[in-house]
Amino acid sequence: MRIKAYGIKQKDGKAAPFYYERGVGENEVRIKVLYCAIARGDIQFISNDWGDTRYPFVPGHEIVGLVEETGSRVTALRVGDRVGVGYQQAACFECGFCKEGNEQFCAQQKVIGVHCYGGLAEHIVVDNRFAFKLPPALHPARAVPLLSSGLTVYSGIVRAQLRANSVVGVLGAGGLGQLAIRFLHKMGHKVYAFSHSPEKKEMINQLGAECIPGSNPEHLATISKTFDLIISTLNVPYDLDDFLKMLKPQGKFCVVASPLKKQPVSIGLLYDYAQRTIYGNYVGSRKDMMDMLAFAAKHNIESIVDIMPFSEMNEAIEKVRAGTVKTRLILENHE
Amino acid sequence: MRIKAYGIKQKDGKAAPFYYERGVGENEVRIKVLYCAIARGDIQFISNDWGDTRYPFVPGHEIVGLVEETGSRVTALRVGDRVGVGYQQAACFECGFCKEGNEQFCAQQKVIGVHCYGGLAEHIVVDNRFAFKLPPALHPARAVPLLSSGLTVYSGIVRAQLRANSVVGVLGAGGLGQLAIRFLHKMGHKVYAFSHSPEKKEMINQLGAECIPGSNPEHLATISKTFDLIISTLNVPYDLDDFLKMLKPQGKFCVVASPLKKQPVSIGLLYDYAQRTIYGNYVGSRKDMMDMLAFAAKHNIESIVDIMPFSEMNEAIEKVRAGTVKTRLILENHE
Repeated sequence: MRIKAYGIKQKDGKAAPFYYERGVGENEVRIKVLYCAIARGDIQFISNDWGDTRYPFVPGHEIVGLVEETGSRVTALRVGDRVGVGYQQAACFECGFCKEGNEQFCAQQKVIGVHCYGGLAEHIVVDNRFAFKLPPALHPARAVPLLSSGLTVYSGIVRAQLRANSVVGVLGAGGLGQLAIRFLHKMGHKVYAFSHSPEKKEMINQLGAECIPGSNPEHLATISKTFDLIISTLNVPYDLDDFLKMLKPQGKFCVVASPLKKQPVSIGLLYDYAQRTIYGNYVGSRKDMMDMLAFAAKHNIESIVDIMPFSEMNEAIEKVRAGTVKTRLILENHE
Repeated sequence: MRIKAYGIKQKDGKAAPFYYERGVGENEVRIKVLYCAIARGDIQFISNDWGDTRYPFVPGHEIVGLVEETGSRVTALRVGDRVGVGYQQAACFECGFCKEGNEQFCAQQKVIGVHCYGGLAEHIVVDNRFAFKLPPALHPARAVPLLSSGLTVYSGIVRAQLRANSVVGVLGAGGLGQLAIRFLHKMGHKVYAFSHSPEKKEMINQLGAECIPGSNPEHLATISKTFDLIISTLNVPYDLDDFLKMLKPQGKFCVVASPLKKQPVSIGLLYDYAQRTIYGNYVGSRKDMMDMLAFAAKHNIESIVDIMPFSEMNEAIEKVRAGTVKTRLILENHE
């Protein structure tokens, strides 16, 4: 089938109709795109910040849509099912990582926006094992950011293996940070959010966290050995040492985003009278995705979103680039 | 009792006889010191590199000796027992960390050389729970470095929870690195040691590892996603990013030493198509110590040592400071 997508042909170019041919393999499904998020990460790809963008680039790796065709071997999904798609389009399902349920490390995986065209399109074709049924309780637009941001922070939290009633810090209260706060709060932990934006205090409180102003280094230096886990969602430089000192012995610092430049760190803080850990989390497994969607549905966890029509996709991209969107921006397809 | 120790009275001063009064508490034992290591870490304290040395400073936190007096509540040890003492002299045994068997994080703990006088002395008094019976198979001098260096790398390795037949890299082939290689080799893993010293190749091979020259950045850059674990014993700056790239997805980088200055790190390497971890290991628990001594005895793991008499302690300190000792330096008490 000839698929109509919206591609960017060069660095910082505008999205414009772009067509490619794509059949449906025996394990695949074709999805009619209803909603697609435009996130900061898409802008970094559009601007080739990481130096590996391939143009034409079709952004969008958080997608909600309806199954409209299934491959001959697909039994788990039917035409008409409402599904969510995250960052992954395919994996080999035969390697060690796939067999142990860590398809996100499969060397043969296809990542949406990197190895294939993204969700800013009328349709997208993915392996049926990467199209996840959306629980009925979740709103199709407000659930969109769960599919990559939500999975990333949820999986990062689960990997920390926190004890009940842990004390957790969240750095940054943007799209990733807001979801991290919600998950942690509903898991029963005591949550503190560090934010440079005083106007976010009320929102942070509503999500279930206390707000610690992040802009006063002297105040930050007084917080010592307090947290079991800190999750950083920041993509701007920060003083990593300040936050490592805030971790209890055996405390963990999870990074799900990073500044483009290297961060200086005092390695000794990891072991001196402590066993501290810094770990990165890259999205999550299929199991994490299903667990996360079930948890979100049960606890009514969705993102705060602004919705704009596909017809205004270039305005939307500019808004995200300019940083003027205070919520997650979701494009809705009316075609 | 009046204890004769050898103290350093000022930054970079010489060790000289120094007396202090110390009884034996109900849970304590007094030990006649037979052997005491002088390590790089002692020199850093003598030189006040960390800025918190208290003078007079009595170095020595790896000690082997004989129990010569036991407190009224001590049942596990008897006069004449051959014991090893590591970094820790006391803990509260009542806090959460102590109760879960992580006495090394007890806020009330006393660390030898930091909170009390060290083992470069005729005697030392410690809580009996920090005097560990030395298995008969272990040589009293060659086992000395096990008590802190050995514990630190053993505990760090155990915490990695490696699968059988993992591929592991060791950075640095000094005192810590040599023990790490031996433990990993005897645990059945495939071990590679990175070293800047070509003359160490033969020794590294004998310990059970292949040698990778550490001084060629272009060669290092060709090693990608190879290791399940890398342990860094380096206290000089290195390119952390180079080694993070060598870790498989879910690979771990364990630091048991660090340069004095901050290290720059690309945080994104921790999560980009990976779930990599950097963790520090600070010595170990009492259980780790007992497990480590039993493992070392079973597999004949000891350190390569040079032995000098207590009477030459200042020459020994100068040798370690100058870095001219190729092995671990152990002082033997003939008094």
